[in-house]
Amino acid sequence: MLHPGAARRVRISVVLHPSRAVARVTYDRDAADAVLDEALTCHVGFVVDGRPHVIPTLHVRVGETLYVHGSTGARLLAAGRSAALPVCVTVSLLDGLVLARSAFHHSLNYRSVIVHGDARAVVDKDEKARVLAALVDRVGVGRSEQCRPPTPKELAATAVLALGLGDPSTDVALKSRTGPPNDDPPDLDSGYWAGVVPVRLTAGAAEPDCDLPVPTGLAPSLEARR
Amino acid sequence: MLHPGAARRVRISVVLHPSRAVARVTYDRDAADAVLDEALTCHVGFVVDGRPHVIPTLHVRVGETLYVHGSTGARLLAAGRSAALPVCVTVSLLDGLVLARSAFHHSLNYRSVIVHGDARAVVDKDEKARVLAALVDRVGVGRSEQCRPPTPKELAATAVLALGLGDPSTDVALKSRTGPPNDDPPDLDSGYWAGVVPVRLTAGAAEPDCDLPVPTGLAPSLEARR
Repeated sequence: MLHPGAARRVRISVVLHPSRAVARVTYDRDAADAVLDEALTCHVGFVVDGRPHVIPTLHVRVGETLYVHGSTGARLLAAGRSAALPVCVTVSLLDGLVLARSAFHHSLNYRSVIVHGDARAVVDKDEKARVLAALVDRVGVGRSEQCRPPTPKELAATAVLALGLGDPSTDVALKSRTGPPNDDPPDLDSGYWAGVVPVRLTAGAAEPDCDLPVPTGLAPSLEARR
Repeated sequence: MLHPGAARRVRISVVLHPSRAVARVTYDRDAADAVLDEALTCHVGFVVDGRPHVIPTLHVRVGETLYVHGSTGARLLAAGRSAALPVCVTVSLLDGLVLARSAFHHSLNYRSVIVHGDARAVVDKDEKARVLAALVDRVGVGRSEQCRPPTPKELAATAVLALGLGDPSTDVALKSRTGPPNDDPPDLDSGYWAGVVPVRLTAGAAEPDCDLPVPTGLAPSLEARR
């Protein structure tokens, strides 16, 4: 489902090298959402005392809102206590190694979404409970109903930031590179091997903590990529 | 090989949830280097007009220097023209999904290195040529000698930032989570499944651009993880 208001802020472009980029500027919120929903982790950037900080963490999209788990970043937590924290949430999926006939055109196939906006700390208990359940369901499909729910104390100890994907101040940019190497015509007959080595995140066999039955589900993104 | 000067700036800690983190503060530059060398991509954070920007890109460590490819980030390039650009380079490897008996203790196993420092733009032609070769060798083992080397024009069009890992102003922090879920004792008999689903980046069959022989090598990190 496209959201016309938000879609105007979604840019899609293919960037290889600036000099020869094939820039496709389209408006496809679904494509951006698909990347956000497939990737298990994101990198959150924020500024403290004028310097950049980038922390890897778990995220989940719930409709128009992108939620970011903040527990591993003490600085992020502290910064998030302010009314609105300027953040850049970047989600990247590596799809392939691009081996070209020239050194210059070696590249990576990837999909990435870069979200610029002002994040708010989630303080409402019901909202936070819903977000924690959604985050748990990203770790394992249906897990939020197959484990002990959080206590009020645990909920209070969980920090979550929220970013409205459709907010006027939010910018969502999707960039990707796909396909074979982009060699210059004079190099095509050079005799060097060229092609793409696809890569993907794959799940191995589950390792039960004790003597337990097999797991009931993996993250959908992993099942889809097996 | 440990570098005592730099090693004092390497922190290793295991962070789960702040309230129960098992913080191991050790000094192991080799462990940080291993993460930098295994990961194919990094996320570079920098500040423009007071706001954070996070861009995914390729990196390579050459001894004491971490090099970051800057071609896909026009803003990064522009910022990099200054004498010293404050950056945060974060490298993350996802190792597993941690399914706990309680929602709260669901987590991810990962290794990440966060490098804070002041980056310089690489302008020396010889240094830039060496870095481009090293970056190409990350895309495919030995590829820098199995393709057409860059022309002076291509080298000039390649932007690279450098960060001295041993510089006094550089801070290198390694964080990781490993092992099974960290459930609270009262939950152990709850009957819920718990364990870890290992995940890794794997390479698929190479896809030749044309009718070409099989590739001569993949990235070492991928071969090691197959």
